[in-house]
Amino acid sequence: MRTEIITVGDEVLRGETVENNTVWLSRSMTSEGIPPSRQTALPDDMGSIRDELCAAAARSDVVVVTGGLGPTVDDVTRQAAIDAFGGKVDVREEIVAGIERRFKELDLPMPGGYRDLARIPAGADVLANNVGAAPGLALKAGGCAVFLLPGVPAEMKDIFERLVLPRLASGARYRRKVWRVYGLMETAVEERLAPFLGNELMGGLSIISSPSGISVYLPAGIDEGTAARAAGGLGDHLFGEGRDRLEEVVVGMLRDRGLTLATAESLTGGMLASMIVSVPGASETFLEGYVTYSDESKIRVLGVDEGAIEASGAVSGEVCGQMAEGAVRVSGADVALSTTGIAGPGGAVPGKPVGLCWMGLAYEGATECRERKMAGDRGMIRLRTASTCLDMLRRRMLGTGRRES
Amino acid sequence: MRTEIITVGDEVLRGETVENNTVWLSRSMTSEGIPPSRQTALPDDMGSIRDELCAAAARSDVVVVTGGLGPTVDDVTRQAAIDAFGGKVDVREEIVAGIERRFKELDLPMPGGYRDLARIPAGADVLANNVGAAPGLALKAGGCAVFLLPGVPAEMKDIFERLVLPRLASGARYRRKVWRVYGLMETAVEERLAPFLGNELMGGLSIISSPSGISVYLPAGIDEGTAARAAGGLGDHLFGEGRDRLEEVVVGMLRDRGLTLATAESLTGGMLASMIVSVPGASETFLEGYVTYSDESKIRVLGVDEGAIEASGAVSGEVCGQMAEGAVRVSGADVALSTTGIAGPGGAVPGKPVGLCWMGLAYEGATECRERKMAGDRGMIRLRTASTCLDMLRRRMLGTGRRES
Repeated sequence: MRTEIITVGDEVLRGETVENNTVWLSRSMTSEGIPPSRQTALPDDMGSIRDELCAAAARSDVVVVTGGLGPTVDDVTRQAAIDAFGGKVDVREEIVAGIERRFKELDLPMPGGYRDLARIPAGADVLANNVGAAPGLALKAGGCAVFLLPGVPAEMKDIFERLVLPRLASGARYRRKVWRVYGLMETAVEERLAPFLGNELMGGLSIISSPSGISVYLPAGIDEGTAARAAGGLGDHLFGEGRDRLEEVVVGMLRDRGLTLATAESLTGGMLASMIVSVPGASETFLEGYVTYSDESKIRVLGVDEGAIEASGAVSGEVCGQMAEGAVRVSGADVALSTTGIAGPGGAVPGKPVGLCWMGLAYEGATECRERKMAGDRGMIRLRTASTCLDMLRRRMLGTGRRES
Repeated sequence: MRTEIITVGDEVLRGETVENNTVWLSRSMTSEGIPPSRQTALPDDMGSIRDELCAAAARSDVVVVTGGLGPTVDDVTRQAAIDAFGGKVDVREEIVAGIERRFKELDLPMPGGYRDLARIPAGADVLANNVGAAPGLALKAGGCAVFLLPGVPAEMKDIFERLVLPRLASGARYRRKVWRVYGLMETAVEERLAPFLGNELMGGLSIISSPSGISVYLPAGIDEGTAARAAGGLGDHLFGEGRDRLEEVVVGMLRDRGLTLATAESLTGGMLASMIVSVPGASETFLEGYVTYSDESKIRVLGVDEGAIEASGAVSGEVCGQMAEGAVRVSGADVALSTTGIAGPGGAVPGKPVGLCWMGLAYEGATECRERKMAGDRGMIRLRTASTCLDMLRRRMLGTGRRES
């Protein structure tokens, strides 16, 4: 099945949209087993849209269009579709009546431009919009199914998931399983999965890497037994499924175990605490965090030994361990995580390059510290350190993390 | 001048790319006065790329292509360009020699696939890659300038800014000025600028809103005097230009004034400290931060009065002010910022809905607290609160922020 996505809007071409409909649609369609074979963005120009609709309907089985369905003069997608697919119009006054009701509920007059929304390509189905005003439209052009959706992301997503996906024949049969993995390079993920999947299934695998972990998209239609055996190959690096985030998994594990957490951050400067707090309900497990950015602050707030800073420097396993231990002592938490390192671009000294990071974990009376040289810019180094620190705690709670000191 | 962008890569069509080359290129080209009139994403398929290159070169003056220039079998853009534009090949062995040197420096053997990078479309210019291996290529196809760039974002950006932009005739003449604005709605920005710009210039304005501030793209070619008068209309909401971030401006102002800063966060949970620490050199001004998430922690760490929490609740101006004052007292910093609020989805109580946030500022012996109902989900509420808190400090340092308590 050949599918494509067309996005309409001058703001898209200027790179102004913060939320990207195309990326979201592409991910949804890919995980349903129908990755698009083309994405096109066009201006609010009737002729360009009409020509592209004709070309797309001729070469593809499914075309999903977003944007240009609203009431203002630059919303020309509906008219372009009328022109592209035969020129005939249905007038559906119930569309306008529904919008008028919405405005009445808000005690506002309906702007006149909405009256035009009643004019739709002849034979098109109306796809109700539960979130906003302009409905979507579904029509057949030869053998091609064309879906016109609003450009407002929340409206587009609602209509697509509720009314478009179920119409796409392949549906759930091809839905792809997604694994979330931390602490392995992409190549290592491949090496660990290859013995279980063989060449053909490996060819259908996609691996997306980011500083907050790897997503492994399994081939569509893989059988449960094979998937389970392959999962075993990833060991404790496999931390979740779908859109699970490392911080969610860690907060969940802490809550399950009735453990409280504190953080002591230098390098990451609050990012680690902020990731934990981003999880709803984190307050049940997270007590407090310290951002001890200066040496003086490490000594005064966390009780780090001044001599240790003088002897080993603030970026050292010794100081990192004392930070975690200090956080346990001061907060009374069961567990504490700590970070120190050189985020750059400045701050490197001989033997301590930019990217050198220490992560500490104090838990059950034992302190563990780990050194890593992180790649990337200041933001990446900080994010990788915060994520690796969370993963250290996750694996320690699983009982599989190594202890080093 | 008609320009377009073509992105090549199966991973783009699956929505897998985290960094989006198309958005970045569109923004850069728009701010240079040459917004693209079309964006297309294509699979790693020789035929699709060749056909689209031909069509694009026929309809546009400038075509920028990213992706598919590497050494692996799915990198087919170079061959597609050879096929599309006459079929003739130049062999440039110096390209391979340069890559071989890079590998030698890393003490690694060069994979054989790189040898093919010597084959380029006849007559093309080589655009040196200072960041990675595969160079970009520039060629003329009839009246159209075609640029082939690597898909790795850092490599693409480097080559585009250094070697492509200067070749685009319009260049600096059309470069658009960008203002950074905080604390106004989009409509308020329009209302404030309209009296200075008039209808025609207002039509050329674009405004991009995000939780970390608004970017106002002025019309290309606006004269300096008009721009300066319009800037006055934005008052102290105008905090910077180009890509300036609020946290950079605030850290810069603190450093200029020789002031030290501490933070006391509940709601934002370290995000405010992390934004400040994201600025290189923040250590010169930022002393320490406290993430006091539990009531007990607010009392013990910051000395917040237990009675105030009982009487007004942790989400109150009283407690927020005491948090900022406590952070000044404990850290010895000149200035402290504090946050408390209800990020949701849970935690709302009668009279205190999700999104209710307090921001505090203790500075020069005076404490100022501000209440706001923030829109959005948990992440947005936290980000808006952290940003608004920074802006409060910025305006106070300017001497224009209002004092409330």
